[in-house]
Amino acid sequence: MTIFSDVAPVRFEGPDTSNEFAYRVYDKDRVVLGRSMAQWLRPAVCYWHSFNWPGADIFGGGTLPRPWLAPVITRSMAEHKLEAAFDFLSRLGLPYFTFHDVDAMATAGSPGEHVVNLHHVEELIAGKMSATGVKLLWGTANLFSHPRYAGGAATSPDPEVFAWAATQVRCCLEATHRLGGENYVLWGGREGYDSLLNTDLKRELDQYGRFLSMVVEHKHRIGFKGAILVEPKPFEPTKHQYDRDAAAVYAFLQRYGLAGEVKVNLEVNHATLAGVDFEHEIAAARAYGIFGSIDINRGDPRNGWDTDQFPNNAQELVPTLVQLIEDGGFTSGGFNFDAKLRRQSLDAADLYLAHIGGMDTLARALLAAADVVASGALAKLTQARYQGWSGDLGRRIQAGEFTLATLADHAVKAGLDPRIPSGRQELAESIVARHCRY
Amino acid sequence: MTIFSDVAPVRFEGPDTSNEFAYRVYDKDRVVLGRSMAQWLRPAVCYWHSFNWPGADIFGGGTLPRPWLAPVITRSMAEHKLEAAFDFLSRLGLPYFTFHDVDAMATAGSPGEHVVNLHHVEELIAGKMSATGVKLLWGTANLFSHPRYAGGAATSPDPEVFAWAATQVRCCLEATHRLGGENYVLWGGREGYDSLLNTDLKRELDQYGRFLSMVVEHKHRIGFKGAILVEPKPFEPTKHQYDRDAAAVYAFLQRYGLAGEVKVNLEVNHATLAGVDFEHEIAAARAYGIFGSIDINRGDPRNGWDTDQFPNNAQELVPTLVQLIEDGGFTSGGFNFDAKLRRQSLDAADLYLAHIGGMDTLARALLAAADVVASGALAKLTQARYQGWSGDLGRRIQAGEFTLATLADHAVKAGLDPRIPSGRQELAESIVARHCRY
Amino acid sequence: MTIFSDVAPVRFEGPDTSNEFAYRVYDKDRVVLGRSMAQWLRPAVCYWHSFNWPGADIFGGGTLPRPWLAPVITRSMAEHKLEAAFDFLSRLGLPYFTFHDVDAMATAGSPGEHVVNLHHVEELIAGKMSATGVKLLWGTANLFSHPRYAGGAATSPDPEVFAWAATQVRCCLEATHRLGGENYVLWGGREGYDSLLNTDLKRELDQYGRFLSMVVEHKHRIGFKGAILVEPKPFEPTKHQYDRDAAAVYAFLQRYGLAGEVKVNLEVNHATLAGVDFEHEIAAARAYGIFGSIDINRGDPRNGWDTDQFPNNAQELVPTLVQLIEDGGFTSGGFNFDAKLRRQSLDAADLYLAHIGGMDTLARALLAAADVVASGALAKLTQARYQGWSGDLGRRIQAGEFTLATLADHAVKAGLDPRIPSGRQELAESIVARHCRY
Amino acid sequence: MTIFSDVAPVRFEGPDTSNEFAYRVYDKDRVVLGRSMAQWLRPAVCYWHSFNWPGADIFGGGTLPRPWLAPVITRSMAEHKLEAAFDFLSRLGLPYFTFHDVDAMATAGSPGEHVVNLHHVEELIAGKMSATGVKLLWGTANLFSHPRYAGGAATSPDPEVFAWAATQVRCCLEATHRLGGENYVLWGGREGYDSLLNTDLKRELDQYGRFLSMVVEHKHRIGFKGAILVEPKPFEPTKHQYDRDAAAVYAFLQRYGLAGEVKVNLEVNHATLAGVDFEHEIAAARAYGIFGSIDINRGDPRNGWDTDQFPNNAQELVPTLVQLIEDGGFTSGGFNFDAKLRRQSLDAADLYLAHIGGMDTLARALLAAADVVASGALAKLTQARYQGWSGDLGRRIQAGEFTLATLADHAVKAGLDPRIPSGRQELAESIVARHCRY
Repeated sequence: MTIFSDVAPVRFEGPDTSNEFAYRVYDKDRVVLGRSMAQWLRPAVCYWHSFNWPGADIFGGGTLPRPWLAPVITRSMAEHKLEAAFDFLSRLGLPYFTFHDVDAMATAGSPGEHVVNLHHVEELIAGKMSATGVKLLWGTANLFSHPRYAGGAATSPDPEVFAWAATQVRCCLEATHRLGGENYVLWGGREGYDSLLNTDLKRELDQYGRFLSMVVEHKHRIGFKGAILVEPKPFEPTKHQYDRDAAAVYAFLQRYGLAGEVKVNLEVNHATLAGVDFEHEIAAARAYGIFGSIDINRGDPRNGWDTDQFPNNAQELVPTLVQLIEDGGFTSGGFNFDAKLRRQSLDAADLYLAHIGGMDTLARALLAAADVVASGALAKLTQARYQGWSGDLGRRIQAGEFTLATLADHAVKAGLDPRIPSGRQELAESIVARHCRY
Repeated sequence: MTIFSDVAPVRFEGPDTSNEFAYRVYDKDRVVLGRSMAQWLRPAVCYWHSFNWPGADIFGGGTLPRPWLAPVITRSMAEHKLEAAFDFLSRLGLPYFTFHDVDAMATAGSPGEHVVNLHHVEELIAGKMSATGVKLLWGTANLFSHPRYAGGAATSPDPEVFAWAATQVRCCLEATHRLGGENYVLWGGREGYDSLLNTDLKRELDQYGRFLSMVVEHKHRIGFKGAILVEPKPFEPTKHQYDRDAAAVYAFLQRYGLAGEVKVNLEVNHATLAGVDFEHEIAAARAYGIFGSIDINRGDPRNGWDTDQFPNNAQELVPTLVQLIEDGGFTSGGFNFDAKLRRQSLDAADLYLAHIGGMDTLARALLAAADVVASGALAKLTQARYQGWSGDLGRRIQAGEFTLATLADHAVKAGLDPRIPSGRQELAESIVARHCRY
Repeated sequence: MTIFSDVAPVRFEGPDTSNEFAYRVYDKDRVVLGRSMAQWLRPAVCYWHSFNWPGADIFGGGTLPRPWLAPVITRSMAEHKLEAAFDFLSRLGLPYFTFHDVDAMATAGSPGEHVVNLHHVEELIAGKMSATGVKLLWGTANLFSHPRYAGGAATSPDPEVFAWAATQVRCCLEATHRLGGENYVLWGGREGYDSLLNTDLKRELDQYGRFLSMVVEHKHRIGFKGAILVEPKPFEPTKHQYDRDAAAVYAFLQRYGLAGEVKVNLEVNHATLAGVDFEHEIAAARAYGIFGSIDINRGDPRNGWDTDQFPNNAQELVPTLVQLIEDGGFTSGGFNFDAKLRRQSLDAADLYLAHIGGMDTLARALLAAADVVASGALAKLTQARYQGWSGDLGRRIQAGEFTLATLADHAVKAGLDPRIPSGRQELAESIVARHCRY
Repeated sequence: MTIFSDVAPVRFEGPDTSNEFAYRVYDKDRVVLGRSMAQWLRPAVCYWHSFNWPGADIFGGGTLPRPWLAPVITRSMAEHKLEAAFDFLSRLGLPYFTFHDVDAMATAGSPGEHVVNLHHVEELIAGKMSATGVKLLWGTANLFSHPRYAGGAATSPDPEVFAWAATQVRCCLEATHRLGGENYVLWGGREGYDSLLNTDLKRELDQYGRFLSMVVEHKHRIGFKGAILVEPKPFEPTKHQYDRDAAAVYAFLQRYGLAGEVKVNLEVNHATLAGVDFEHEIAAARAYGIFGSIDINRGDPRNGWDTDQFPNNAQELVPTLVQLIEDGGFTSGGFNFDAKLRRQSLDAADLYLAHIGGMDTLARALLAAADVVASGALAKLTQARYQGWSGDLGRRIQAGEFTLATLADHAVKAGLDPRIPSGRQELAESIVARHCRY
């Protein structure tokens, strides 16, 4: 019995149910464009916000019932937490979870203790996974909470911190591998700076490049087949993080020869903090061939920090889901609920309600996106816009037949006076809106 | 006689002058750390905001006395404008100017007319440059104002627009070359999108890559030795521009094989719209080897569009000037005042007052930065932070002696428990502040 | 025949129609909670964006076919525009329109000419209204586009500008009255400042208070029964506008004794620029008794200016519609589409598509909100949160039985240790989401 | 001996000192425009950030040496903290401090214990104040950190929480009174909402009005002569706080009959989060007669939360200091350093360095503002702008001689064609900049 045991396993009951602890839209086996909802969405619950966060914010202490938490976590508290977590996971019925090393393990005071404590809990996790069937979408090492990481991990001013980070990542990558994790994520929460005045930016980028190269080398050494994913975020906790957005990561990966080895785990709220629509990050990552996985949540459009709210507006996610469908779905990635309760959502039941609302939102977005794709309306409208590029001039330009000079000569000679076609943006937006009916 | 003839040539008169039409700090020949202020700053007046903008905003019409402006510019109006512009330039006493093709020329209705009209005004500009000694920092083609560019230039849905853009850039690059311009700039104001729903992002990036490659080829073909500079901006006029910030440009340049050929012209207000400090853009561009030139202005920190105000807070610019001094100054770049009057600054005299205030701001920042650099205080503080990397462990990591596994083993064995040094951020900020005394 | 004549009158055809020029959800006579959709929504088309804006932005000229526009509008051009406008209005089938004086009239060079030209077009408008049945939701005077208003209208540094503004408002208020307008709006687009350094804020507030008082006096003098509405906006075109948001307006109205006479016309994009959710502005205006009418549109959540896009996400509007339903609907107000096409929406047809999409969005939001209200789920959840205030202590506090001291004494004596109830925010959000199915 | 005892008392040593633990500009007895720097600035150190915050942020634990902190504070820890705090205060040499009840006292589990523990520490504080001469600028109760306040204090959904808040405020107001505090502040950090969907905004405003009225009644009952100050902030920790900005507070105060009794404590970072310049908040509060005191700090212009950094750019503060000088200085208010170290400023010494930098910044701003005021340049420029209002038409309008109708008649008859004067904004900005030389 845990605090989560009062809720019966959550089932799909359809939109007309009056049961708040049921899925109204997410029907994991429902087939959409040839595969099941669960296969398209590959949803995961995160360990940190759900089980390791007490409801504290910067102005106040914990509000949520998380009896297994304390400043120092013992093995028995970690075990208590694990019991509750898998009780929740198995009742919620989603296929995956994700975790940081320190979310799950007993607090360690030295590198040696870290290795031992992580290994201890890894075995317990393996047992729970086996017992419940819940799988690991990805693991990650927390390289930002401990005071030693205040100045960064790979980009720390102190090489001993770099070495500590190497220890954590090595162990967590190996644990992820053994647990069958499908990806390994690095979020560089403090890989950045608080002030440029005391920072050697070039040196720190070089350190970061070296670190990632070492991680990639180790992945191959141990035979891990999952993807290595970097998670962009523009700031918070630092003033500026090097992994600002997908383009910044791609700039960095190319610079350090990692573009074929590392992809991105894109988070909705991180994109919006960076000032870009989430669907842009997806599109940019796809264009550059580095799209990996998604942390699904949302920010508050009026507040300027990472509120990590559960998604609840399906229409906002349709452009993302359309792209996912066009790609034929994730390869190793999935939708990880990197989302947390509001601080006043005080009951154990709220964690169910939040995830159920989030899953139904994803399911609505998937169904709407599938209808949009099936209708062909957006694709047709877009293709019509670019049809000139299928004409003679367009083909010749793309075939490399012109230099700047010869193309200019052509323009002058032909007396070009182009009239671009209407972009039909309002119609395109209406097409998306009208399919959001679930 | 022009509207600018009432003001006597602007001279340096020192901080105690009561003459508003004199420089208080900018003394072009004053030697700072081995070279003159003018050599460090290489300031330029821009043609567009100063002479080609009537004081209109999105909610109201022109307020400024610019009698040479009309919806269609004739040759005689262009000549009138040129006369006034060089009258102002020669009285203001700054060494450079910058211009777009359409700022200076008579309106053209076809590619052929464009070629002729630009050539006509180019000869007049050459005469004025020769007569006044004012030099050209850079030229650029306006690929965003005409309706044909509503959907982009290189990234237009219509290849004829691409060809029009090629015509303008070819002509303007050649004119810049003949006029002795030291750089050529491309600002992709509409190279982006208004909506992803009707946009093929990958295709548009490819088109943009092709276009820039053609520009680079043409530069070499004609023997232009100046730098080709792309100017990042995140949005406005479009919803999202591909050249969002320095990192996004570097990602793009590497992808399309242009990283050795193209650099960036960084603008203060564009950086802040992108959500990054301007000094970050400088630092990122330096780290990636693509720093070229600067558009100096400032945004309003509470308004979310490109206000293009004249800079007036020297302390804000010190981190930028420190970096510039560390680099030994610009190569081909300079500080271009891409800044415009407020709409209520109604008198011809205001254009002087604004530029004088801006120049004195740059001069103050230069003097303060030189003092900061000369004191060595910031450099010493920063070096102290990273001193661990000069120790044994740091050197071995940098020498590539460790894999992730062996470094982790080392950490465990050594029982590392690092204590990072204080970042001394408040002291660093105080060091900058205390040198701002000019 | 006008450019808008190619589209047949727009009808409701239901969600499954393949006709893009039909309403899918907005069925004006459909009864929802006791009244028709048209009665709930009272939608209006605005004259300015639809017919008086050529598709220009700050970086480029007009793109849209608006053959009746030119720098100076003659009477015949104004008539041409009017013909096209009412052709569009009658085909679109919405009950209301809104206009600024200068949108509709021939350009005037003096106060006297203004009076005459406005009167001329007023008569033509009256004829068109009579012929088509389209009604006037509100009129307003444009006190921001002409250069004389660069420094404000009522808050201008020049009393002659104040007098010009008085002339325009007097005439437009009287015209609105004669045309049967149901409200009169003042948007103080330049009632603010560009810089505090040259501004006497207190003096300008006093001027604004005097001006509004004169408008109220005149309203009563002529017997206008509609509401006088001020429209909040935080900035743009100015750096700071005094009518920042609903609370700022209410502060001002109380200060100048106008709280019972003036209400607010709230705009979605203005609220979001001010950093508040639109539904907050509605709630604040209702709490303070100053809610009047709505300008419906949306901003781009990543861009920092007034993009005035057509609304397209019904779920975002449900909290607003729920409040409207709770109030029993508008009194004199309505939903005015203060929205404009994107600059690439080049065809006359796009103006229909945009309004149709916007109306269907409003209709979807109305249906969803009606379902939310009918279900009682949100109201029940909210009442449960506050139930303590119906208990003994709550009632006594509200009855004024305690001073601070006696209440503190009570708390000590009772040893209070309150546990607040779960806020159930995620559930509340899910309740809204699940009703968005139209 | 405390962790702060290593630094000798901080003295003014002038700009050329090489001692980092000395004031370079702040010379407390230096007379500026007739009074000492200390009298103008009335600076205070805050207890919470300086002594009660361990350097934690939302992503990581405490980094700073604060050995007296723990999840539960005992009396002996509170005493240890007090010892260190007054050691620091007396060495820093600023005249004032500020505190929350819970910053200083031992943790209390019930209202009764709260009363006792606060009283205990009050006596110790009184002793320290007497011994060191440090005075109390203001006290305040922390109504936001304890989980009971998650849904607000005065605006809580639970009346028992309201009663708890009454207990804390009553005790802290009385303690402040006995300690000779010159003001009492209420910051309504959670007086707002996380979601409107579960909030009865009107009810909560009424509760807040009642609470403030009770506080005012109690102030008079006990004879406290200081000012009651509300501190505006737009959001964080809540999504939306009712005290958004000065205008919102004034709207509220008028509504609940408190406009003559309550003023505002304005914070720089709160203003900028609200989207307004800090000097605007000062100007608005002065215009409305509610200006009280200042929390001096700054935000990071690129980050969207309350970073509470020490101020370091004097020029930014000149417009505020000019207004303060125009008012003849504070009445009961002062400059409270509501500012905290960066998380990497790990040494005890950093707390000195940060405050010294902040004080010198204030002193520079004061000296520059005094020079600006003494020069008369800004005042003259502003008066010239409004000179029309001293003419005949301006005087008659202000004397109420016109109705809207008669003023319009006058405009028509006179054929008014006003030309507003140049705003000279760039010159005004240069005037400020050139005086920043300290």
